[in-house]
Amino acid sequence: MRTAAALVIGNELLTGKIQDQNVLVLARTLRSIGVLLRRVVMVLDELDTIASEVRSLAASHDVVFTSGGVGPTHDDVTIAAISRAFGVDPVRSPEIESTLRAYYGDRMTEGHLAMAKVPAGARLARTPGGVWPAIVKDNVWILPGVPQIFAMKMPLIVAELGTGRGWVSLAVFTRLDEGDLKEHLDRVVEAHPHVEIGSYPTFADVRYRTKLTFDGLDEAAVKQARDAFVERLTADDIVPGD
Amino acid sequence: MRTAAALVIGNELLTGKIQDQNVLVLARTLRSIGVLLRRVVMVLDELDTIASEVRSLAASHDVVFTSGGVGPTHDDVTIAAISRAFGVDPVRSPEIESTLRAYYGDRMTEGHLAMAKVPAGARLARTPGGVWPAIVKDNVWILPGVPQIFAMKMPLIVAELGTGRGWVSLAVFTRLDEGDLKEHLDRVVEAHPHVEIGSYPTFADVRYRTKLTFDGLDEAAVKQARDAFVERLTADDIVPGD
Repeated sequence: MRTAAALVIGNELLTGKIQDQNVLVLARTLRSIGVLLRRVVMVLDELDTIASEVRSLAASHDVVFTSGGVGPTHDDVTIAAISRAFGVDPVRSPEIESTLRAYYGDRMTEGHLAMAKVPAGARLARTPGGVWPAIVKDNVWILPGVPQIFAMKMPLIVAELGTGRGWVSLAVFTRLDEGDLKEHLDRVVEAHPHVEIGSYPTFADVRYRTKLTFDGLDEAAVKQARDAFVERLTADDIVPGD
Repeated sequence: MRTAAALVIGNELLTGKIQDQNVLVLARTLRSIGVLLRRVVMVLDELDTIASEVRSLAASHDVVFTSGGVGPTHDDVTIAAISRAFGVDPVRSPEIESTLRAYYGDRMTEGHLAMAKVPAGARLARTPGGVWPAIVKDNVWILPGVPQIFAMKMPLIVAELGTGRGWVSLAVFTRLDEGDLKEHLDRVVEAHPHVEIGSYPTFADVRYRTKLTFDGLDEAAVKQARDAFVERLTADDIVPGD
């Protein structure tokens, strides 16, 4: 199983100015191609913190995705930090520079040109027709923080890493609370070690009390676990539909 | 400056089943009482991972908040993990047990009783009139993952930790892009080292192109930095209002 981590960068997230949108999008993308997202770390716009985090995550996961800090202003330190993590200098990418010159034309400033910097030795990942590439240094994908642009990079990830099977996920909604379900769940969990079973109470939805999820790479095994759980309950315990 | 970290626990987040809601709520709460949230880590429902993360975060921050994994089912391993992090056993809290017995009455099962477990030596934090306490072990607050319940715990945090001044945050919306703003920003950042200045481009809002934020604990300093930035632009560059 390939493993992934995400490093989500930005003061705006840790100060509560905005809510992160990118983890969900990335998690779903990775789930669909059978990559296991094991860890997400959110940090401030601090060069040293980002560099040490990238070094550690890149060493312990097959692939790492960073989000944020790639613009041209003083609070954009991701390229410098990732360069430091790999012991290289940030260098100007001639390819990105010419894309920037074509885009900005006469309006081009030194400020815009700051966006052409990449860690030395990085490669550019592109999809056909896409104007802006993603920068990839070793096993670290350097993605922008703006949610609309971040989401546009997902097809690149699928194109390059999408060789695995996606997870199968089934859900059962019940009228029982977790305390009542615990014994049933413990038995099913024990009998189905290759299926990931999750239990999620709600206090906001009047239609059910607990949602159970059954996830795995083997569809038959997932269905067996789900069915074994359902068989332990009465028809009244289960919310029909879905 | 007091520092904080959050450990957000749950397979459902890293598999893209749901979007985290709690970091935003916690970040805003901490911001309002002058506590600096430096780091958020999201991990799977894995006892060892959670234990080692809690140990590391609790040693390097003044206060740590965990979210999730406190129910009674097999995937709820937070209490066991935090106990391990501090080298103690999980024990049954008589106080929580009697609250559970009062709440469930005859319907009480062994499953429900599993929720009375706390790390040995933990204390309970309560607000007047609140039925369910928050469990606090040393400098680690153990909070539930369900967003509605998580949010209900915020007044407890303010009541115990709310001695600091909140941050002041001002914003300016401009029609310029970051490349054009860079030089102005660099000057203002250099001249106002105690003000945190953020620059956030948008690609989804037609009213402005870049939002600038000015944050700090000293309101006069924040206003000075904001004004110094505004003075460098023309009236046309700035979106009025707000």
